[in-house]
Amino acid sequence: MKISARNILKGKVVDIVKGTTTAHVRIDVNGTIVTASITNESVDDLGLVKGMTASAVIKASDVMVAVE
Amino acid sequence: MKISARNILKGKVVDIVKGTTTAHVRIDVNGTIVTASITNESVDDLGLVKGMTASAVIKASDVMVAVE
Amino acid sequence: MKISARNILKGKVVDIVKGTTTAHVRIDVNGTIVTASITNESVDDLGLVKGMTASAVIKASDVMVAVE
Amino acid sequence: MKISARNILKGKVVDIVKGTTTAHVRIDVNGTIVTASITNESVDDLGLVKGMTASAVIKASDVMVAVE
Amino acid sequence: MKISARNILKGKVVDIVKGTTTAHVRIDVNGTIVTASITNESVDDLGLVKGMTASAVIKASDVMVAVE
Amino acid sequence: MKISARNILKGKVVDIVKGTTTAHVRIDVNGTIVTASITNESVDDLGLVKGMTASAVIKASDVMVAVE
Repeated sequence: MKISARNILKGKVVDIVKGTTTAHVRIDVNGTIVTASITNESVDDLGLVKGMTASAVIKASDVMVAVE
Repeated sequence: MKISARNILKGKVVDIVKGTTTAHVRIDVNGTIVTASITNESVDDLGLVKGMTASAVIKASDVMVAVE
Repeated sequence: MKISARNILKGKVVDIVKGTTTAHVRIDVNGTIVTASITNESVDDLGLVKGMTASAVIKASDVMVAVE
Repeated sequence: MKISARNILKGKVVDIVKGTTTAHVRIDVNGTIVTASITNESVDDLGLVKGMTASAVIKASDVMVAVE
Repeated sequence: MKISARNILKGKVVDIVKGTTTAHVRIDVNGTIVTASITNESVDDLGLVKGMTASAVIKASDVMVAVE
Repeated sequence: MKISARNILKGKVVDIVKGTTTAHVRIDVNGTIVTASITNESVDDLGLVKGMTASAVIKASDVMVAVE
Protein backbone atom coordinates (compact mmCIF):
# COMPACT_ATOMS: atom_id res chain seq x y z
CA MET A 1 0.00 0.00 0.00
CA LYS A 2 1.29 3.47 -0.93
CA ILE A 3 -0.20 6.43 0.95
CA SER A 4 -0.58 10.18 0.36
CA ALA A 5 0.91 11.17 3.75
CA ARG A 6 4.16 13.07 3.03
CA ASN A 7 5.98 11.75 6.13
CA ILE A 8 6.77 8.04 6.34
CA LEU A 9 9.58 7.89 8.91
CA LYS A 10 11.03 4.39 9.19
CA GLY A 11 12.55 3.27 12.51
CA LYS A 12 12.44 0.74 15.37
CA VAL A 13 9.74 0.34 18.05
CA VAL A 14 11.43 1.12 21.39
CA ASP A 15 8.41 1.33 23.70
CA ILE A 16 4.68 0.44 23.85
CA VAL A 17 2.48 1.65 26.77
CA LYS A 18 -1.17 0.53 26.66
CA GLY A 19 -3.98 2.46 28.46
CA THR A 20 -7.62 1.29 28.49
CA THR A 21 -8.37 2.11 24.85
CA THR A 22 -5.30 4.09 23.70
CA ALA A 23 -1.62 3.07 23.52
CA HIS A 24 1.54 5.18 23.24
CA VAL A 25 4.10 3.74 20.83
CA ARG A 26 7.60 5.22 20.62
CA ILE A 27 9.63 4.74 17.44
CA ASP A 28 13.36 5.50 17.18
CA VAL A 29 13.86 7.13 13.77
CA ASN A 30 17.58 7.61 13.17
CA GLY A 31 18.09 8.60 16.83
CA THR A 32 14.95 10.77 16.97
CA ILE A 33 12.14 9.39 19.14
CA VAL A 34 8.67 9.86 17.59
CA THR A 35 5.61 9.17 19.80
CA ALA A 36 2.34 7.88 18.31
CA SER A 37 -0.96 7.56 20.13
CA ILE A 38 -3.00 4.75 18.51
CA THR A 39 -5.75 2.37 19.67
CA ASN A 40 -4.86 -0.82 21.56
CA GLU A 41 -6.73 -2.61 18.77
CA SER A 42 -4.22 -1.22 16.24
CA VAL A 43 -1.26 -2.37 18.35
CA ASP A 44 -2.66 -5.92 18.30
CA ASP A 45 -3.71 -5.78 14.62
CA LEU A 46 -0.23 -4.68 13.56
CA GLY A 47 1.39 -7.20 15.93
CA LEU A 48 3.60 -4.43 17.32
CA VAL A 49 6.37 -5.52 19.68
CA LYS A 50 9.51 -3.80 20.93
CA GLY A 51 12.47 -4.04 18.55
CA MET A 52 10.50 -4.48 15.35
CA THR A 53 10.74 -2.18 12.32
CA ALA A 54 7.83 0.25 11.91
CA SER A 55 7.16 3.64 10.34
CA ALA A 56 5.66 6.78 11.86
CA VAL A 57 3.17 8.08 9.26
CA ILE A 58 2.21 11.78 9.48
CA LYS A 59 0.27 14.06 7.09
CA ALA A 60 2.20 17.26 6.26
CA SER A 61 -0.82 19.29 7.38
CA ASP A 62 -0.51 17.78 10.88
CA VAL A 63 3.06 19.05 11.29
CA MET A 64 3.58 22.49 12.79
CA VAL A 65 6.86 24.43 12.75
CA ALA A 66 8.35 26.21 15.77
CA VAL A 67 11.41 28.41 16.22
CA GLU A 68 13.16 29.64 19.36
CA MET B 1 6.60 28.55 25.55
CA LYS B 2 6.26 24.85 26.48
CA ILE B 3 3.62 22.82 24.61
CA SER B 4 1.65 19.60 25.20
CA ALA B 5 2.53 18.09 21.80
CA ARG B 6 4.67 14.96 22.50
CA ASN B 7 6.83 15.36 19.39
CA ILE B 8 9.16 18.38 19.18
CA LEU B 9 11.75 17.29 16.59
CA LYS B 10 14.58 19.81 16.31
CA GLY B 11 16.41 20.16 12.95
CA LYS B 12 17.40 22.49 10.09
CA VAL B 13 15.11 24.01 7.43
CA VAL B 14 16.28 22.59 4.08
CA ASP B 15 13.46 23.75 1.79
CA ILE B 16 10.49 26.15 1.66
CA VAL B 17 7.97 26.02 -1.23
CA LYS B 18 5.15 28.61 -1.11
CA GLY B 19 1.77 28.09 -2.87
CA THR B 20 -0.99 30.74 -2.89
CA THR B 21 -2.00 30.30 0.77
CA THR B 22 -0.09 27.19 1.89
CA ALA B 23 3.66 26.52 2.04
CA HIS B 24 5.59 23.25 2.32
CA VAL B 25 8.54 23.42 4.70
CA ARG B 26 11.05 20.56 4.88
CA ILE B 27 13.11 20.12 8.05
CA ASP B 28 16.13 17.81 8.29
CA VAL B 29 15.90 16.12 11.69
CA ASN B 30 19.04 14.05 12.27
CA GLY B 31 19.06 12.96 8.62
CA THR B 32 15.30 12.37 8.49
CA ILE B 33 13.34 14.84 6.34
CA VAL B 34 10.01 15.93 7.91
CA THR B 35 7.56 17.89 5.71
CA ALA B 36 5.18 20.45 7.23
CA SER B 37 2.32 22.19 5.44
CA ILE B 38 1.73 25.60 7.06
CA THR B 39 0.27 28.94 5.93
CA ASN B 40 2.45 31.42 4.00
CA GLU B 41 1.56 33.85 6.81
CA SER B 42 3.22 31.49 9.31
CA VAL B 43 6.39 31.25 7.19
CA ASP B 44 6.66 35.06 7.24
CA ASP B 45 5.68 35.39 10.93
CA LEU B 46 8.34 32.88 11.97
CA GLY B 47 10.88 34.45 9.60
CA LEU B 48 11.65 30.99 8.20
CA VAL B 49 14.62 30.77 5.83
CA LYS B 50 16.69 27.85 4.55
CA GLY B 51 19.48 26.78 6.90
CA MET B 52 17.91 28.04 10.12
CA THR B 53 17.17 25.85 13.15
CA ALA B 54 13.50 24.92 13.58
CA SER B 55 11.41 22.17 15.17
CA ALA B 56 8.68 19.99 13.66
CA VAL B 57 5.90 19.92 16.27
CA ILE B 58 3.43 17.00 16.08
CA LYS B 59 0.70 15.76 18.47
CA ALA B 60 1.04 12.04 19.30
CA SER B 61 -2.58 11.53 18.20
CA ASP B 62 -1.64 12.77 14.70
CA VAL B 63 1.02 10.08 14.27
CA MET B 64 -0.02 6.74 12.77
CA VAL B 65 2.09 3.56 12.78
CA ALA B 66 2.64 1.32 9.75
CA VAL B 67 4.43 -2.01 9.30
CA GLU B 68 5.46 -3.85 6.15
CA MET C 1 2.17 -1.74 4.27
CA LYS C 2 -0.38 -2.16 7.09
CA ILE C 3 -1.40 0.98 8.98
CA SER C 4 -2.90 1.80 12.40
CA ALA C 5 -5.67 4.01 10.99
CA ARG C 6 -9.01 2.28 11.79
CA ASN C 7 -10.75 3.41 8.59
CA ILE C 8 -9.47 2.09 5.25
CA LEU C 9 -12.43 2.61 2.92
CA LYS C 10 -11.81 1.04 -0.50
CA GLY C 11 -13.50 2.59 -3.57
CA LYS C 12 -13.02 4.20 -6.99
CA VAL C 13 -11.55 7.65 -7.78
CA VAL C 14 -14.38 9.65 -9.41
CA ASP C 15 -12.86 13.15 -9.44
CA ILE C 16 -9.51 14.97 -9.01
CA VAL C 17 -9.37 18.80 -8.80
CA LYS C 18 -5.87 20.32 -8.44
CA GLY C 19 -5.26 23.78 -6.88
CA THR C 20 -1.79 25.37 -6.67
CA THR C 21 -0.47 23.09 -3.92
CA THR C 22 -3.55 21.15 -2.76
CA ALA C 23 -5.82 18.78 -4.68
CA HIS C 24 -9.34 17.50 -3.88
CA VAL C 25 -9.82 13.81 -4.64
CA ARG C 26 -13.29 12.24 -4.50
CA ILE C 27 -13.58 8.50 -3.93
CA ASP C 28 -16.83 6.55 -4.40
CA VAL C 29 -16.98 4.04 -1.55
CA ASN C 30 -19.97 1.75 -2.05
CA GLY C 31 -22.06 4.68 -3.29
CA THR C 32 -20.79 7.09 -0.62
CA ILE C 33 -18.55 9.90 -1.90
CA VAL C 34 -15.58 10.62 0.40
CA THR C 35 -13.53 13.80 -0.29
CA ALA C 36 -9.80 13.93 0.51
CA SER C 37 -7.62 17.03 0.41
CA ILE C 38 -4.02 15.98 -0.35
CA THR C 39 -0.98 17.65 -1.94
CA ASN C 40 -0.61 17.79 -5.74
CA GLU C 41 2.72 15.99 -5.16
CA SER C 42 0.82 13.08 -3.57
CA VAL C 43 -1.58 12.87 -6.52
CA ASP C 44 1.42 12.54 -8.87
CA ASP C 45 3.36 10.18 -6.55
CA LEU C 46 0.38 7.83 -6.28
CA GLY C 47 -0.33 8.13 -10.01
CA LEU C 48 -3.97 8.88 -9.23
CA VAL C 49 -6.34 8.98 -12.20
CA LYS C 50 -10.13 8.85 -12.47
CA GLY C 51 -11.56 5.32 -12.44
CA MET C 52 -8.73 3.67 -10.53
CA THR C 53 -9.16 1.79 -7.23
CA ALA C 54 -8.02 3.70 -4.12
CA SER C 55 -8.77 3.79 -0.41
CA ALA C 56 -9.73 6.71 1.82
CA VAL C 57 -7.61 6.31 4.98
CA ILE C 58 -8.88 8.07 8.13
CA LYS C 59 -7.78 7.86 11.79
CA ALA C 60 -10.71 7.13 14.15
CA SER C 61 -9.77 10.20 16.19
CA ASP C 62 -10.35 12.38 13.10
CA VAL C 63 -13.97 11.21 12.75
CA MET C 64 -16.68 13.14 14.58
CA VAL C 65 -20.26 11.96 15.08
CA ALA C 66 -23.35 14.11 14.48
CA VAL C 67 -27.07 13.50 15.03
CA GLU C 68 -30.10 15.45 13.85
CA MET D 1 -26.37 23.53 11.96
CA LYS D 2 -24.48 23.37 8.65
CA ILE D 3 -20.73 22.67 8.85
CA SER D 4 -17.68 23.23 6.61
CA ALA D 5 -16.47 19.61 6.82
CA ARG D 6 -16.73 18.13 3.30
CA ASN D 7 -17.63 14.62 4.47
CA ILE D 8 -20.97 14.11 6.23
CA LEU D 9 -21.58 10.36 5.83
CA LYS D 10 -25.04 9.37 7.09
CA GLY D 11 -25.60 5.84 8.46
CA LYS D 12 -26.65 3.72 11.45
CA VAL D 13 -24.79 3.23 14.75
CA VAL D 14 -23.87 -0.47 14.93
CA ASP D 15 -21.51 -0.48 17.93
CA ILE D 16 -20.40 1.69 20.88
CA VAL D 17 -17.41 0.66 23.07
CA LYS D 18 -16.60 3.00 26.00
CA GLY D 19 -13.10 3.22 27.57
CA THR D 20 -12.31 5.45 30.58
CA THR D 21 -12.48 8.76 28.71
CA THR D 22 -12.71 7.74 25.04
CA ALA D 23 -15.35 5.69 23.21
CA HIS D 24 -15.24 3.93 19.82
CA VAL D 25 -18.43 4.34 17.78
CA ARG D 26 -18.95 2.31 14.61
CA ILE D 27 -21.36 3.64 11.98
CA ASP D 28 -22.60 1.57 9.03
CA VAL D 29 -22.63 3.91 6.03
CA ASN D 30 -24.18 2.11 3.06
CA GLY D 31 -22.45 -1.13 4.04
CA THR D 32 -19.14 0.58 4.85
CA ILE D 33 -18.21 0.61 8.56
CA VAL D 34 -16.68 3.94 9.71
CA THR D 35 -15.07 4.05 13.18
CA ALA D 36 -15.05 7.26 15.24
CA SER D 37 -13.12 7.83 18.46
CA ILE D 38 -14.97 10.45 20.55
CA THR D 39 -15.23 11.28 24.27
CA ASN D 40 -17.62 9.32 26.52
CA GLU D 41 -19.12 12.75 27.33
CA SER D 42 -20.00 13.19 23.64
CA VAL D 43 -21.66 9.76 23.50
CA ASP D 44 -23.89 10.76 26.42
CA ASP D 45 -24.50 14.33 25.14
CA LEU D 46 -25.61 13.03 21.74
CA GLY D 47 -27.66 10.25 23.38
CA LEU D 48 -25.99 7.71 21.06
CA VAL D 49 -27.43 4.18 21.13
CA LYS D 50 -27.11 1.24 18.76
CA GLY D 51 -29.50 1.35 15.81
CA MET D 52 -29.98 5.10 15.70
CA THR D 53 -29.22 7.28 12.66
CA ALA D 54 -25.99 9.27 12.89
CA SER D 55 -23.42 10.83 10.57
CA ALA D 56 -19.66 10.43 10.48
CA VAL D 57 -18.27 13.95 9.99
CA ILE D 58 -14.73 14.24 8.56
CA LYS D 59 -12.72 17.23 7.26
CA ALA D 60 -11.29 16.62 3.75
CA SER D 61 -7.83 17.49 5.08
CA ASP D 62 -8.08 14.57 7.53
CA VAL D 63 -8.60 12.04 4.74
CA MET D 64 -5.54 10.41 3.18
CA VAL D 65 -5.53 8.39 -0.05
CA ALA D 66 -3.80 5.02 -0.49
CA VAL D 67 -3.31 2.74 -3.49
CA GLU D 68 -2.10 -0.85 -3.71
CA MET E 1 -27.43 18.86 13.77
CA LYS E 2 -25.62 18.17 17.07
CA ILE E 3 -21.95 17.18 16.85
CA SER E 4 -19.45 15.35 19.08
CA ALA E 5 -16.78 18.08 18.85
CA ARG E 6 -16.35 19.51 22.37
CA ASN E 7 -15.65 23.08 21.20
CA ILE E 8 -18.43 25.01 19.47
CA LEU E 9 -17.37 28.65 19.86
CA LYS E 10 -20.06 31.03 18.64
CA GLY E 11 -19.01 34.45 17.26
CA LYS E 12 -19.06 36.81 14.27
CA VAL E 13 -17.20 36.46 10.95
CA VAL E 14 -14.76 39.38 10.76
CA ASP E 15 -12.64 38.38 7.76
CA ILE E 16 -12.60 35.96 4.80
CA VAL E 17 -9.47 35.56 2.59
CA LYS E 18 -9.78 33.11 -0.33
CA GLY E 19 -6.74 31.38 -1.94
CA THR E 20 -7.02 29.06 -4.97
CA THR E 21 -8.59 26.16 -3.09
CA THR E 22 -8.35 27.17 0.58
CA ALA E 23 -9.82 30.16 2.44
CA HIS E 24 -8.93 31.68 5.83
CA VAL E 25 -11.96 32.69 7.87
CA ARG E 26 -11.54 34.74 11.06
CA ILE E 27 -14.27 34.59 13.71
CA ASP E 28 -14.46 37.00 16.66
CA VAL E 29 -15.50 34.90 19.66
CA ASN E 30 -16.13 37.19 22.62
CA GLY E 31 -13.14 39.35 21.65
CA THR E 32 -10.90 36.38 20.82
CA ILE E 33 -10.10 35.94 17.11
CA VAL E 34 -10.17 32.29 15.96
CA THR E 35 -8.78 31.48 12.47
CA ALA E 36 -10.18 28.59 10.41
CA SER E 37 -8.72 27.25 7.19
CA ILE E 38 -11.54 25.70 5.10
CA THR E 39 -12.13 25.07 1.39
CA ASN E 40 -13.46 27.87 -0.85
CA GLU E 41 -16.30 25.44 -1.64
CA SER E 42 -17.27 25.43 2.06
CA VAL E 43 -17.26 29.24 2.20
CA ASP E 44 -19.73 29.30 -0.71
CA ASP E 45 -21.82 26.36 0.59
CA LEU E 46 -22.24 28.02 3.99
CA GLY E 47 -22.88 31.41 2.36
CA LEU E 48 -20.27 32.97 4.66
CA VAL E 49 -20.03 36.75 4.59
CA LYS E 50 -18.42 39.28 6.95
CA GLY E 51 -20.62 40.22 9.91
CA MET E 52 -22.68 37.04 10.04
CA THR E 53 -22.93 34.75 13.07
CA ALA E 54 -20.89 31.55 12.83
CA SER E 55 -19.24 29.03 15.14
CA ALA E 56 -15.66 27.75 15.21
CA VAL E 57 -15.96 23.97 15.70
CA ILE E 58 -12.89 22.17 17.09
CA LYS E 59 -12.37 18.59 18.38
CA ALA E 60 -10.81 18.51 21.87
CA SER E 61 -8.08 16.22 20.53
CA ASP E 62 -7.04 18.96 18.08
CA VAL E 63 -6.40 21.46 20.88
CA MET E 64 -2.92 21.59 22.42
CA VAL E 65 -2.02 23.40 25.65
CA ALA E 66 1.01 25.67 26.06
CA VAL E 67 2.47 27.51 29.07
CA GLU E 68 5.10 30.22 29.26
CA MET F 1 9.28 29.18 21.27
CA LYS F 2 7.16 30.67 18.46
CA ILE F 3 4.86 28.27 16.59
CA SER F 4 3.15 28.19 13.17
CA ALA F 5 -0.33 27.41 14.60
CA ARG F 6 -2.56 30.42 13.81
CA ASN F 7 -4.60 30.15 17.02
CA ILE F 8 -2.85 30.80 20.35
CA LEU F 9 -5.73 31.60 22.71
CA LYS F 10 -4.47 32.75 26.11
CA GLY F 11 -6.64 32.10 29.19
CA LYS F 12 -6.89 30.42 32.63
CA VAL F 13 -7.08 26.70 33.41
CA VAL F 14 -10.48 26.12 35.05
CA ASP F 15 -10.63 22.31 35.09
CA ILE F 16 -8.42 19.21 34.63
CA VAL F 17 -9.95 15.68 34.42
CA LYS F 18 -7.47 12.80 34.04
CA GLY F 19 -8.44 9.41 32.49
CA THR F 20 -6.00 6.48 32.24
CA THR F 21 -3.83 7.97 29.49
CA THR F 22 -5.78 11.05 28.35
CA ALA F 23 -6.79 14.17 30.29
CA HIS F 24 -9.40 16.86 29.51
CA VAL F 25 -8.22 20.39 30.26
CA ARG F 26 -10.66 23.31 30.14
CA ILE F 27 -9.29 26.82 29.57
CA ASP F 28 -11.35 29.98 30.06
CA VAL F 29 -10.42 32.31 27.21
CA ASN F 30 -12.09 35.68 27.75
CA GLY F 31 -15.25 33.96 28.99
CA THR F 32 -15.18 31.25 26.30
CA ILE F 33 -14.39 27.75 27.58
CA VAL F 34 -12.03 25.78 25.27
CA THR F 35 -11.57 22.03 25.94
CA ALA F 36 -8.28 20.27 25.12
CA SER F 37 -7.67 16.54 25.20
CA ILE F 38 -3.96 15.90 25.93
CA THR F 39 -1.95 13.07 27.51
CA ASN F 40 -1.66 12.80 31.31
CA GLU F 41 2.11 12.95 30.70
CA SER F 42 1.67 16.40 29.12
CA VAL F 43 -0.39 17.64 32.09
CA ASP F 44 2.46 16.62 34.42
CA ASP F 45 5.23 17.90 32.10
CA LEU F 46 3.58 21.32 31.84
CA GLY F 47 2.84 21.36 35.57
CA LEU F 48 -0.78 22.25 34.80
CA VAL F 49 -2.95 23.18 37.78
CA LYS F 50 -6.29 24.96 38.09
CA GLY F 51 -6.03 28.78 38.07
CA MET F 52 -2.78 29.02 36.12
CA THR F 53 -2.36 30.91 32.83
CA ALA F 54 -2.19 28.70 29.75
CA SER F 55 -2.93 28.94 26.02
CA ALA F 56 -5.08 26.74 23.80
CA VAL F 57 -3.02 26.17 20.63
CA ILE F 58 -4.94 25.16 17.48
CA LYS F 59 -3.89 24.87 13.80
CA ALA F 60 -6.22 26.82 11.47
CA SER F 61 -6.72 23.65 9.44
CA ASP F 62 -8.18 21.92 12.52
CA VAL F 63 -10.90 24.57 12.90
CA MET F 64 -14.20 24.01 11.10
CA VAL F 65 -16.90 26.64 10.61
CA ALA F 66 -20.62 26.04 11.23
CA VAL F 67 -23.71 28.21 10.70
CA GLU F 68 -27.29 27.78 11.89
